Amino acid sequence: MSASQFGSRFVITTFGESHGTALGVVIDGCPAGVQFDEALLRKELERRRPGHHGSGQIVSGRQEGDQAEVLSGVFEGKTLGTPMAIIVRNQDARSQDYSAIKTSPRAGHADDMWKNKFGHSDHRGGGRSSGRETVSRVMAGSVAQMMMKHVSGPTKVIGYASQIGPMTLTAEERSEVLNKDIDSFQGRFPSSRDSEVAELLKKAQENGDSHGGIAEILIQNPPAYLGQPVFHKLKSDLAMAFLSVGATNGFELGLGFEASEVKGTEFHKNSAGSQYGGIRGGISTGESILLRVSFKPTSSILDVAKKGRHDPCIVTRAIPVLEAMTWLVLADHYLWSKTDRI
Amino acid sequence: MSASQFGSRFVITTFGESHGTALGVVIDGCPAGVQFDEALLRKELERRRPGHHGSGQIVSGRQEGDQAEVLSGVFEGKTLGTPMAIIVRNQDARSQDYSAIKTSPRAGHADDMWKNKFGHSDHRGGGRSSGRETVSRVMAGSVAQMMMKHVSGPTKVIGYASQIGPMTLTAEERSEVLNKDIDSFQGRFPSSRDSEVAELLKKAQENGDSHGGIAEILIQNPPAYLGQPVFHKLKSDLAMAFLSVGATNGFELGLGFEASEVKGTEFHKNSAGSQYGGIRGGISTGESILLRVSFKPTSSILDVAKKGRHDPCIVTRAIPVLEAMTWLVLADHYLWSKTDRI
Amino acid sequence: MSASQFGSRFVITTFGESHGTALGVVIDGCPAGVQFDEALLRKELERRRPGHHGSGQIVSGRQEGDQAEVLSGVFEGKTLGTPMAIIVRNQDARSQDYSAIKTSPRAGHADDMWKNKFGHSDHRGGGRSSGRETVSRVMAGSVAQMMMKHVSGPTKVIGYASQIGPMTLTAEERSEVLNKDIDSFQGRFPSSRDSEVAELLKKAQENGDSHGGIAEILIQNPPAYLGQPVFHKLKSDLAMAFLSVGATNGFELGLGFEASEVKGTEFHKNSAGSQYGGIRGGISTGESILLRVSFKPTSSILDVAKKGRHDPCIVTRAIPVLEAMTWLVLADHYLWSKTDRI
Amino acid sequence: MSASQFGSRFVITTFGESHGTALGVVIDGCPAGVQFDEALLRKELERRRPGHHGSGQIVSGRQEGDQAEVLSGVFEGKTLGTPMAIIVRNQDARSQDYSAIKTSPRAGHADDMWKNKFGHSDHRGGGRSSGRETVSRVMAGSVAQMMMKHVSGPTKVIGYASQIGPMTLTAEERSEVLNKDIDSFQGRFPSSRDSEVAELLKKAQENGDSHGGIAEILIQNPPAYLGQPVFHKLKSDLAMAFLSVGATNGFELGLGFEASEVKGTEFHKNSAGSQYGGIRGGISTGESILLRVSFKPTSSILDVAKKGRHDPCIVTRAIPVLEAMTWLVLADHYLWSKTDRI
Repeated sequence: MSASQFGSRFVITTFGESHGTALGVVIDGCPAGVQFDEALLRKELERRRPGHHGSGQIVSGRQEGDQAEVLSGVFEGKTLGTPMAIIVRNQDARSQDYSAIKTSPRAGHADDMWKNKFGHSDHRGGGRSSGRETVSRVMAGSVAQMMMKHVSGPTKVIGYASQIGPMTLTAEERSEVLNKDIDSFQGRFPSSRDSEVAELLKKAQENGDSHGGIAEILIQNPPAYLGQPVFHKLKSDLAMAFLSVGATNGFELGLGFEASEVKGTEFHKNSAGSQYGGIRGGISTGESILLRVSFKPTSSILDVAKKGRHDPCIVTRAIPVLEAMTWLVLADHYLWSKTDRI
Repeated sequence: MSASQFGSRFVITTFGESHGTALGVVIDGCPAGVQFDEALLRKELERRRPGHHGSGQIVSGRQEGDQAEVLSGVFEGKTLGTPMAIIVRNQDARSQDYSAIKTSPRAGHADDMWKNKFGHSDHRGGGRSSGRETVSRVMAGSVAQMMMKHVSGPTKVIGYASQIGPMTLTAEERSEVLNKDIDSFQGRFPSSRDSEVAELLKKAQENGDSHGGIAEILIQNPPAYLGQPVFHKLKSDLAMAFLSVGATNGFELGLGFEASEVKGTEFHKNSAGSQYGGIRGGISTGESILLRVSFKPTSSILDVAKKGRHDPCIVTRAIPVLEAMTWLVLADHYLWSKTDRI
Repeated sequence: MSASQFGSRFVITTFGESHGTALGVVIDGCPAGVQFDEALLRKELERRRPGHHGSGQIVSGRQEGDQAEVLSGVFEGKTLGTPMAIIVRNQDARSQDYSAIKTSPRAGHADDMWKNKFGHSDHRGGGRSSGRETVSRVMAGSVAQMMMKHVSGPTKVIGYASQIGPMTLTAEERSEVLNKDIDSFQGRFPSSRDSEVAELLKKAQENGDSHGGIAEILIQNPPAYLGQPVFHKLKSDLAMAFLSVGATNGFELGLGFEASEVKGTEFHKNSAGSQYGGIRGGISTGESILLRVSFKPTSSILDVAKKGRHDPCIVTRAIPVLEAMTWLVLADHYLWSKTDRI
Repeated sequence: MSASQFGSRFVITTFGESHGTALGVVIDGCPAGVQFDEALLRKELERRRPGHHGSGQIVSGRQEGDQAEVLSGVFEGKTLGTPMAIIVRNQDARSQDYSAIKTSPRAGHADDMWKNKFGHSDHRGGGRSSGRETVSRVMAGSVAQMMMKHVSGPTKVIGYASQIGPMTLTAEERSEVLNKDIDSFQGRFPSSRDSEVAELLKKAQENGDSHGGIAEILIQNPPAYLGQPVFHKLKSDLAMAFLSVGATNGFELGLGFEASEVKGTEFHKNSAGSQYGGIRGGISTGESILLRVSFKPTSSILDVAKKGRHDPCIVTRAIPVLEAMTWLVLADHYLWSKTDRI
């Protein structure tokens, strides 16, 4: 297990600095025979791009226009069972914007941490600690999704913002989430109040301020019996996957922290209820899995170099990344389950 | 990476069913020359035992009296750098109590999940999905603690219950936590209201009910610069470690979910504040690390075989386990950091 | 991957010093539902014991009488899919015999290497560098064999000595190997000249001398298509497995070094010939796999503490160990192949 | 551990099909602060190119002219401690030459094995089973070499052919090997008879024939105490590394198979002799390490598509690859040894 590696069977290794030559991923462990869906790869990359959903421009103005190039592992439209390398070149580097950082590490950022840890670091735009690193995750996740489509067609992963700063989805809005086209909402906050969200974020950007928030990930029709006891419970691998995303600081399954206030007789009344979040004993039951991730307010507000270009809230952009991580965990555990019994 | 394996450098593999012959752990990767502190091992096992802190008997009556036996890896009081195997034999099996479960898997438990996943499972007392499995973690964690004492003497890991069912520590009580002997409190709830906690749990046990709760883990004086980008951030490995413990369903670092409600300008005002929880960019800053874990109400209330012997709240017992997992993550990342730079 | 760990899917971790409390292995990754054949485990341990085949006493007189104890992972005669821990306690430690070594590391042994590497080592009888360590491999290998019986009944692994010191099997004797009961031959050298071998070894023991030799492992009816490109070719994993056994210093597949003297047109004339050794492109073809391992003369002749009790040739004893390693590689790659294609 | 991954600390993952878009490697685990020596990378790639040493053209005429591109992990001339991705694009694909293979897999090649294993394979020029795959190893090996230069300056890895078909180095020639510029010899066979070798190989190419051979790798001044007991002895990892190279079928350390014919009293007479090959108990002693690898005659003679362009002997080209694998094992074990003791 190396530092930039994730997964035990469907194994990915990501690489790339924010302002280096390219970012990418090698996927080692994807079985042969998976239909390679390049349109899906492009679509997921597009969904990750700042400002490329909803009608507004409420996220960082950096136009990445990422073009994925598949270097290996695919032949005549299908995976070969060999490692798949996919890269994206950095184009809009604007390294001049970042030159100020050379002497002064960005406050609130991890720049100083990396500098002290490694003794030598790429100061340009956060290097590998930048959110740009998630491009690799999204590419890998799209391949995991392709594989899962083969083996578990009905499985769906849906992410949305349930809270952005002070604004929270109502119970009714949450119950309607599956009937909405999440990407059509500004902030991926599926509510009629989405223009208020846009307003909130616009103001924050103008004021050099930012907001935290909460993303929810719903896995519909997951395969049952995924998850390995003891350390690789489905929930522990999901928690690790989500907390590996920058700016995250909380994770919940099902009822989460609220469960601490419910009596056992109440909590366990309905043995197939959503309070369990679709995972019992660390293993998927086949019921919907509900996950929540909290994000702290973006720290780039402190970053002089990003003046006026910072993301006022990271949740919206993080959603395709969390979805990608979810697909990766599912694909990994699906393959793992192939050897549960003789 | 196999299913019952944890860690990348300080690697442990645990084994053992609740009512099998023995439980244990193999630690592969502990360096040679660590003073082996058998008293510490015994003490931590004792702390994990039900009902062996505080004055009351508010947890499951099963008397385990675990005797650890070190099979390898230690010679003349010091570690050899070879794998350390430590086991505990099961004595108080009371397998007759559990015979009822043979035909009917225990509701709310993971028994049916395991049965369906593996096709063949040990129905006695939960087999490996039982909380008894944590004996192995506590033994391994005590060795990790021994190693950390060598290399980072001032580092301390302190766990306590901040919420048990409806009862929550006050702000003042929390600020006093470091001055308290946590184990002297019933429920490890460091408050003058601990007799109320005892009463609450006693009642729950009588009524066949249970409570969830929240445990907090505070790491004082952690080594700085632990954590590996990208997937093995210190926070992601801690989240995975904690969520791998049974009955957990939430994790927070620093402010956690609350941070979603704070404006960025407010949140980032103090760059060395506790809101970050002692980890930035996934890397320890050297400041105290604050972690919170939520637990759902114990499901054993539904277990006919455990009538009257169930734990009314798992948080109290889980604290030494969470501490052990914390030491394991620290030891793993400490060794990992040895090769950060040339 | 930790130091005492072997395998990627069928993962084992071994532990134990020669004169410590116990030796053992944890197998993590064996699927559920494998019939546990305790008689096979006992038989393989017995086959590994010095002097317990043939009629003579041509190997080290240490009577180990190893009793395996299964601590976990098996229930009602079948594997649970959970980690299987199996241990053997050390009884005949005779630590007094070894006390002389405390101050002077044993010449020719690895004792001094370990001492310098780790700073602290168990000097008694070689600690973990002793041949006694192979008990764990044989136990694990027997479980791998149980699993393979389920999934590939006709597969057989047959080991024998093809050379002991100056004595070599004739071409005719080699061609007859499958019709012989190898264990009935002294030295596991399947030849009518086995009494000469016994005489040779007896003399060596009396003279404080030793011999090297060559073991051959034949895998009959292996599953086809085992082996993973690029680094985990079946041949590379077998080479690693065999070279991890003490005193080995050479490995050959099929024709081996001899192939360097044959012209390509000759070598490749018969595309299904034994010259390939049953592996092409690193992948098993389904044909018999032939492997050869060379051993240097035992170094224990230099060991004052072992005066008169040393093994005059290690090949004979090593054969059950090499067979065990072969089963482990087969089981590992069998499970691995389950995810080759979707 | 995934299929195309090698190493435990200095971890590489390679990718790329022979006639795909690109080949490459991701190195995860190289510490920060290593001087990146691009000239060395270029030189090693050049040394791997067919026909680019000596005066003759005795190897396959495919002109690769590989241009390495570093995508990540290096900044201002030094490694960042983040993953380093290095790729080489395929240019001279000549896919038309290989179109004949589409329906008929190449005899003697692994093409049919891959086809049957994965169900879907890249038939063009061997896909990933082609020798072209070794480009990735050579690039990774050059980085390992850069790291080792920092930490163990005097260490050198020297490879040469000791046998090509019927021609073998004399004892005198072998003893002179360190005084020779190996690359200046045709066939990397450091003998005055190198023109005979050239003649031999030329004839073989004309006759559609090929030869096997033996490569020797000498590690001068290796760091002492590298190698991990039990399964990751230095010798087992080296054996695995070498046997993972295509067309190999034998491995020897020190005296190798010859040792089986030497009496123990003779063999162990000189406790620091070369018969041990510089490794004892699986651990490097600090003395020179001598390794030998045998290769079968190239199978491409059977390949209609390669008519007149096949390599008549693979040994010469394999030498930079074996050297690269050696550097990788050294770098991996060097980092590993950093945590041997507290």
